[in-house]
Amino acid sequence: MLGRLIAQITYKEDLMSDPNPEVVEQLRQLLGDQAVRTQPDDFMPDIVLKPESTEQVSTILKICSAAGQALVPLGGKTGLANGHFQTDSELGLSLERMHAIEEVDTANRTMTVQAGCILQTAAEAAEEQGLLLPLDFGARGSATVGGCVATNAGGNMVIRYGMARDMVLGLEVVLADGTIVTSMNKMLKNNTGYDLKQWFIGAEGTLGVITRVVMRLRPHPRSQNTALLAVDDFDSVGKLLHWLDGNTAGTLSAFEVMWPDFYEFITRQGSIHRAPLPHGSAFYVLVETLGSNPEADAESFETVLGEAMEQGLVSDAVLTRSQSERNALWEIRDDVLEFFKLGPIIPFDVSLTIEKMESFVSDIREGMDRLDASICVVFGHLGDSNLHLILGNENPDAFDYGALETLLYESVERYQGSVSAEHGVGLSKRAHLPRSRSEAELQLMVGMKKMLDPNNILNPNKIFSADKIAAT
Amino acid sequence: MLGRLIAQITYKEDLMSDPNPEVVEQLRQLLGDQAVRTQPDDFMPDIVLKPESTEQVSTILKICSAAGQALVPLGGKTGLANGHFQTDSELGLSLERMHAIEEVDTANRTMTVQAGCILQTAAEAAEEQGLLLPLDFGARGSATVGGCVATNAGGNMVIRYGMARDMVLGLEVVLADGTIVTSMNKMLKNNTGYDLKQWFIGAEGTLGVITRVVMRLRPHPRSQNTALLAVDDFDSVGKLLHWLDGNTAGTLSAFEVMWPDFYEFITRQGSIHRAPLPHGSAFYVLVETLGSNPEADAESFETVLGEAMEQGLVSDAVLTRSQSERNALWEIRDDVLEFFKLGPIIPFDVSLTIEKMESFVSDIREGMDRLDASICVVFGHLGDSNLHLILGNENPDAFDYGALETLLYESVERYQGSVSAEHGVGLSKRAHLPRSRSEAELQLMVGMKKMLDPNNILNPNKIFSADKIAAT
Repeated sequence: MLGRLIAQITYKEDLMSDPNPEVVEQLRQLLGDQAVRTQPDDFMPDIVLKPESTEQVSTILKICSAAGQALVPLGGKTGLANGHFQTDSELGLSLERMHAIEEVDTANRTMTVQAGCILQTAAEAAEEQGLLLPLDFGARGSATVGGCVATNAGGNMVIRYGMARDMVLGLEVVLADGTIVTSMNKMLKNNTGYDLKQWFIGAEGTLGVITRVVMRLRPHPRSQNTALLAVDDFDSVGKLLHWLDGNTAGTLSAFEVMWPDFYEFITRQGSIHRAPLPHGSAFYVLVETLGSNPEADAESFETVLGEAMEQGLVSDAVLTRSQSERNALWEIRDDVLEFFKLGPIIPFDVSLTIEKMESFVSDIREGMDRLDASICVVFGHLGDSNLHLILGNENPDAFDYGALETLLYESVERYQGSVSAEHGVGLSKRAHLPRSRSEAELQLMVGMKKMLDPNNILNPNKIFSADKIAAT
Repeated sequence: MLGRLIAQITYKEDLMSDPNPEVVEQLRQLLGDQAVRTQPDDFMPDIVLKPESTEQVSTILKICSAAGQALVPLGGKTGLANGHFQTDSELGLSLERMHAIEEVDTANRTMTVQAGCILQTAAEAAEEQGLLLPLDFGARGSATVGGCVATNAGGNMVIRYGMARDMVLGLEVVLADGTIVTSMNKMLKNNTGYDLKQWFIGAEGTLGVITRVVMRLRPHPRSQNTALLAVDDFDSVGKLLHWLDGNTAGTLSAFEVMWPDFYEFITRQGSIHRAPLPHGSAFYVLVETLGSNPEADAESFETVLGEAMEQGLVSDAVLTRSQSERNALWEIRDDVLEFFKLGPIIPFDVSLTIEKMESFVSDIREGMDRLDASICVVFGHLGDSNLHLILGNENPDAFDYGALETLLYESVERYQGSVSAEHGVGLSKRAHLPRSRSEAELQLMVGMKKMLDPNNILNPNKIFSADKIAAT
């Protein structure tokens, strides 16, 4: 199933050609065998450069720029928009050897890391100093900090701490021509001219190669209160979000909504996940607060949820009493891979304003019925206007990737939503980008791409096709 | 005094020439007398265009672009870096007639305003719906939302809610050639290509004219706890910041430090401000938390401060018990104009990492002694790495603007600080920008300026001189 799915979305087999062998040889001479590796792959470049310093990245880009040799920057290679795939004759450029944690600065609450540092490793180094790197999602063990910044990663704490962009204080980037631009700012306020780090955050490696990053850290929370709530209707979900946000004084860190098709399948009979609340509710909401006073926070969490029940916003609730109970709740929410057991599926990541969500989901369900497609699972970081949908078909022969994609993205466009909330555009959403961005916006973006990467050697065909760039 | 000070920092008298009269006439014909006003001014353009719609802004820019007629975008005209001054033959472009609050969206907690809306008006409209626009500073009654966004304004709640950049979800901007780019996103997550709103936030009107903005709102806090604390040494100031940040679970909204020369002058005998704490301490810190549970928050605020005293981080404290007591504390911190009574002064706005601040201030004091300059007052948003310094001379004849500026900015450079924390660069810090930004960074910025404004008609000579642009 998965193989077939990927075959439909990769470009490698159709278009692949070899990188320029002279460039590869030149790089091998200059950087040594350690930095030029061959590792055959179905989707990613077979020849991967592995520099060990910013200067080596600069050398690589100078040579590739002169030769017109394109590169795919590689982080943890677990992105969900195929931004790390080969599209033509690219070399890979992996930052995996540049994984140092250069500093955890407890006075200023910052950390400085090389881009190839694994997110979880960075988070653990912060935690050792009693600090929190507030970026967390399923791929924490493979994603790199550089990849997180390049894709503006989101995850499980966005409602409280924002996305990757919001925690980057400084960065170092190598431009397409090899110029090293070092902006390793550690200060919270810095209005000295254009905030050029913003240009590279979320640009998916198409404007420059991020080599080092300064991240803002926060005090590590001392209390964590987690609950699963049952809610009777969508209107109450919205009211509950506002109620909690207004009554937890900025400590609300998760508001994860599961539609019953998600919750009931994951906790079905025979599943490894026990159902903490009975099936049959309209919505299930996982909420969490992060505080500083364990006893008082637990009491106030219970009070605030009790009041929500009295108001009828919540019909049933389970509060966790231990870390293992908390883990069990999160494992339900995080076990998205389980849906691959249903049949061929596509996981989507979109955003919508909250008042449109219910009607949007109902439109999608109607469309699925029309297509006779049976899998439609909805969940999301609702506090961040972010919905995930899993669409597919229990009958593999009737699975139609294009039809499902068109159904979904046409609806997103109609509801003025965004075709990418947190996964980025990469290859897989490129064709649908104009549904969320006007031609004036796209032209401006392409102008930026042309200014910073005139030969289109940095992650070409991601976000914009070479044709789009040539035509703008 | 002030006149002399301003005369030293303005460029108008030296360089001023008249705007192109044919362009002015053409605009008058097209837009009407209401939109083309003459209002003589010593520093700002005498002829000010006052469009009433984005389309009119676009028309103006098309005509000015074709004619090479430069413009100074004008918001509240209370910026502190002279970004609103005339430098050559510019027309003014005031957004004051575009002041509508288009929407306060309580479901998504956003507000949509035209750029000319006064900050305080916007904040009050949010408050009427129980929501908070968390951007506040002294000039709230004159600053416009568009100006705040164009300068990435900071202020009194940055430690909790971030700067203007952090609350902008979407914007509409008119480019130099008149192209309208509408990116009025209302969603918290939106990773659809480059986040181009970031390019214009903080660009001080040099890359485009911001016409409309979507701002993120927050639940209005229900409790506010404020105290003035005396602290014995700078090391304890840093520890106190971390103690409070770690024990108030994200509710800390102000950590304003006053060195004794600030506090003791403002609360001196005969001043309108009473001294809530006796003179003689090394530092005075105004702290505030914003919470959701008045009773519990007051109790926990007192507990956390009590523990700070037990640890020796705080030597004396006054907690406010009423809104008028709270106002009295903030009036001490905000009464910066009082220092103009001392003699000619220059207010500075810089940022530094916290471990360098004490030594930096001591270097500045030594330098002031060498210059025989007697006024050196220090205060700042310490939680945001932002120091304000007021330097001057009680003897007006010995006041040497250039020497004080050089002393200060040379030190900032030596300590790897930023010459602008929150005020921007404008005209007044332009010459010192290279102290905080490398040539590679500056070249990249100028490249952006040339791409978006090839004829240099948008706020020319701000951030970068025309010469710098021509030479890059």
